[in-house]
Amino acid sequence: MWQPDRQSKKPIYQQIAEHLQQRIRQGEYPPGSLLPSERKLAGLLQVNRSTIIQAYEDLRAHGWVYRTVGSGTRVSNPESDEAKAPNWRRYLENGTMRPNLAAMRRIREELRGEKAPIDMASGELSDDLFPNEHIQRLLGERPYGGHLGYDDPQGYGPLRETIARFLCQYLGIDAAGSSLLVTSGSQQSLFLITQCLLSPGDAVAVEDPSYCHSLSMFRSAGLRVFSLPVDGEGIDPDDIAALHRQHRLRMVFLNPNFQNPTGTVLSGERRARLLDVTAGLGIPIVEDDPFSLTAFDGRPPQPLRAMAHANGQMLYVGSLSKIAASGLRIGWLLGPHSVIARLADARQQMDFGMSVIPQWVASEFLGSSMFDRHISSLRQRLAYKMDTLRAALDTAIPGLASFAVPNGGLNLWVNWRGAGDPDETRMLERAIRAGMTYVPGQVFGTRPGFLRLSFAKPALDQIEEGVLRLRRAWTETP
Amino acid sequence: MWQPDRQSKKPIYQQIAEHLQQRIRQGEYPPGSLLPSERKLAGLLQVNRSTIIQAYEDLRAHGWVYRTVGSGTRVSNPESDEAKAPNWRRYLENGTMRPNLAAMRRIREELRGEKAPIDMASGELSDDLFPNEHIQRLLGERPYGGHLGYDDPQGYGPLRETIARFLCQYLGIDAAGSSLLVTSGSQQSLFLITQCLLSPGDAVAVEDPSYCHSLSMFRSAGLRVFSLPVDGEGIDPDDIAALHRQHRLRMVFLNPNFQNPTGTVLSGERRARLLDVTAGLGIPIVEDDPFSLTAFDGRPPQPLRAMAHANGQMLYVGSLSKIAASGLRIGWLLGPHSVIARLADARQQMDFGMSVIPQWVASEFLGSSMFDRHISSLRQRLAYKMDTLRAALDTAIPGLASFAVPNGGLNLWVNWRGAGDPDETRMLERAIRAGMTYVPGQVFGTRPGFLRLSFAKPALDQIEEGVLRLRRAWTETP
Repeated sequence: MWQPDRQSKKPIYQQIAEHLQQRIRQGEYPPGSLLPSERKLAGLLQVNRSTIIQAYEDLRAHGWVYRTVGSGTRVSNPESDEAKAPNWRRYLENGTMRPNLAAMRRIREELRGEKAPIDMASGELSDDLFPNEHIQRLLGERPYGGHLGYDDPQGYGPLRETIARFLCQYLGIDAAGSSLLVTSGSQQSLFLITQCLLSPGDAVAVEDPSYCHSLSMFRSAGLRVFSLPVDGEGIDPDDIAALHRQHRLRMVFLNPNFQNPTGTVLSGERRARLLDVTAGLGIPIVEDDPFSLTAFDGRPPQPLRAMAHANGQMLYVGSLSKIAASGLRIGWLLGPHSVIARLADARQQMDFGMSVIPQWVASEFLGSSMFDRHISSLRQRLAYKMDTLRAALDTAIPGLASFAVPNGGLNLWVNWRGAGDPDETRMLERAIRAGMTYVPGQVFGTRPGFLRLSFAKPALDQIEEGVLRLRRAWTETP
Repeated sequence: MWQPDRQSKKPIYQQIAEHLQQRIRQGEYPPGSLLPSERKLAGLLQVNRSTIIQAYEDLRAHGWVYRTVGSGTRVSNPESDEAKAPNWRRYLENGTMRPNLAAMRRIREELRGEKAPIDMASGELSDDLFPNEHIQRLLGERPYGGHLGYDDPQGYGPLRETIARFLCQYLGIDAAGSSLLVTSGSQQSLFLITQCLLSPGDAVAVEDPSYCHSLSMFRSAGLRVFSLPVDGEGIDPDDIAALHRQHRLRMVFLNPNFQNPTGTVLSGERRARLLDVTAGLGIPIVEDDPFSLTAFDGRPPQPLRAMAHANGQMLYVGSLSKIAASGLRIGWLLGPHSVIARLADARQQMDFGMSVIPQWVASEFLGSSMFDRHISSLRQRLAYKMDTLRAALDTAIPGLASFAVPNGGLNLWVNWRGAGDPDETRMLERAIRAGMTYVPGQVFGTRPGFLRLSFAKPALDQIEEGVLRLRRAWTETP
């Protein structure tokens, strides 16, 4: 009688499942016939019943058998009439990509509806903050007439050179176009890093609270995610050393400048310590830097990557989404050339690269004097929106909420400690009914009691009205 | 003394690895100390030595221990000086995305070089076949002045409506814009399907030979790939039933019209049988249809998806890459709405969607009368290029090679049965030295003896010269 090979690396349950598949294929168990009971087979093979349950579960998942209450496990008929249409539901439960967070899907759905609430949930610029006219003028005066074939796997060459100059001029980062990968926004940079440089089960550390869309992605990649609590000066680098002792971190993801969602800037002292600690441990840092140029006072904090000795240990991620137009879908990833080449190769498998047209637009815009005028106007208008939100909160709900006013970014992180419903996820429904929406703090992977109000998308009068509606939701008797 | 839990679903080796991690963390095994020998620990825990080897291997892979020849397994020092710089090489060997095929990377590298060979490897249009002037005129006359924010997760609404009308008018496919997802070319459609609807270990069937870039992607997704041999009439549907009995297929990927690389069109009789067989088994078909409109005689074969009863069981994948411009990166996926919504949600995690600008360009172009003129001119010029290649082969190497002349597509599949080197992958190096490049047949997952010559990229005189260079490589004494 067949027995599982206990020396094999292959799990016992899988050996059993494969053995049964073979016997089904060979006709020993024809369609409709009953497999041995779990208890009986466990006895025959001298394994735990739980191992047999797992083997049968595996066969069921792959369509070899089905289960009927009270009558055990039977062999499926591969040509049964019931199978007429593919069971799409079964496919939808499959795959390695997990669905996005329910709260985010809920908010998106509301914002796409007919009577959309005031949007203080989307961390993005309003239409009037985009350089629409600049870009329309560019397209009209010098319509793109270049190559329309597949692009260089690392992205449009002239754009990479322009980004390299831009990084040097605006952020003090020394970069070569050949070490840059143009990506479809920061999101794609992070996706490539998690898919190509990390494996399921790897431990990574992220800020707590942290950018919500990375958290879904890390979950999809099967990573073990550990938290670095953020206070007024950012994360504490010694937490990284402690986590590493416990879990052997493979990578640290940070947003040091105007952190999303808290708006904090990592302090100078902690920066130095951070680079020491991570260099000592050999842990690479992924620096996500979408907001530096929004600095309201026009003096962007320096990115970590600009500190000379940080070059070799960092992957630097940036984009135009928060400082020009998210709809261009232009981001970049700067890192050691071997890493960039590997990620460029992998990206070919995912989407064959990006259209050259928005890359050309971005290159023309970023390389022109228009860009400087645009940034200068953008940060002034963002500062004014931020101030409007602050004033509205102070007037409408003094004492109900507390927050630290950031010096840049698009978001205000509010410690919601008022009376009423303590669950800001459930309160979201009340806010939507009142006609506004925000992102509940728990979406950012942190403890209850917070919410993120984004001030860049709504118009000035919408900010004021949004806060009044928030108060209504807040103080309403549940 | 601690013992693994033999009832647990968690593999024994993993329990042991986790237990040792805990003891290392608690300081019981300090950095540098020796772990028990494999044999000794196996005895203590009453498990096979191979289980201990696996546990130590796991600890080593995660950086907890290191191995020294002759002196056993020691605990690593998490703060050792050796760790100063991240070991990027270790990261590059990681990740779930596998590198692309070596031959394809080699060809791409040559084509990007200073003295690029004649390109009969890239299955894409030459610059002069792209509708450059049409698109430049569009951009200049009506420069895009619309929204520059994030796009609808399913893609730009007006483009989806235009694609729906296009599918109906040109290919007889009944589609609604709400059931379409705009993707970054067919490649992204296929990537989303493999990542979101299939799981590692799932069995799929593909044509043999088959589109090379899907094969890398399937490998990255951990799928088990089974072959459906293609003859002059396409695949044999009964092979699907046979494979299903053996392996329980989860999905079938087909390119029925002007199949890449063979150029065959699936015959009418086999189409009917294919839909019967797959419907009976409840297996969804992914129909990849990039080439239909290239039909040299102007009468595109109908896609499978246009057969009325095929609606519910198919995912239909198309793009503008082979019929307009690959650099627009515009593809589409048509399927049941629940599937499209799931894939759109997952795509947000990967790249937050595509730039609206090329989508707007594609919508304007596809919806205008220019498109019809473009297609009509394109197919005539492709037919002429195909004919030039055929004549060049007949003249230069009669009897050395055999092929079936296709009625559409961009490729000629050549049965290389000549004298000389029988390995077309090694012969590729000779061809590159002679100044031309093709794709070796084995890259398409098939048996030796074939190569793919693409005729859409090279100019007419390059086609003739390329064939002469191919003959030189072919007949050269190794």
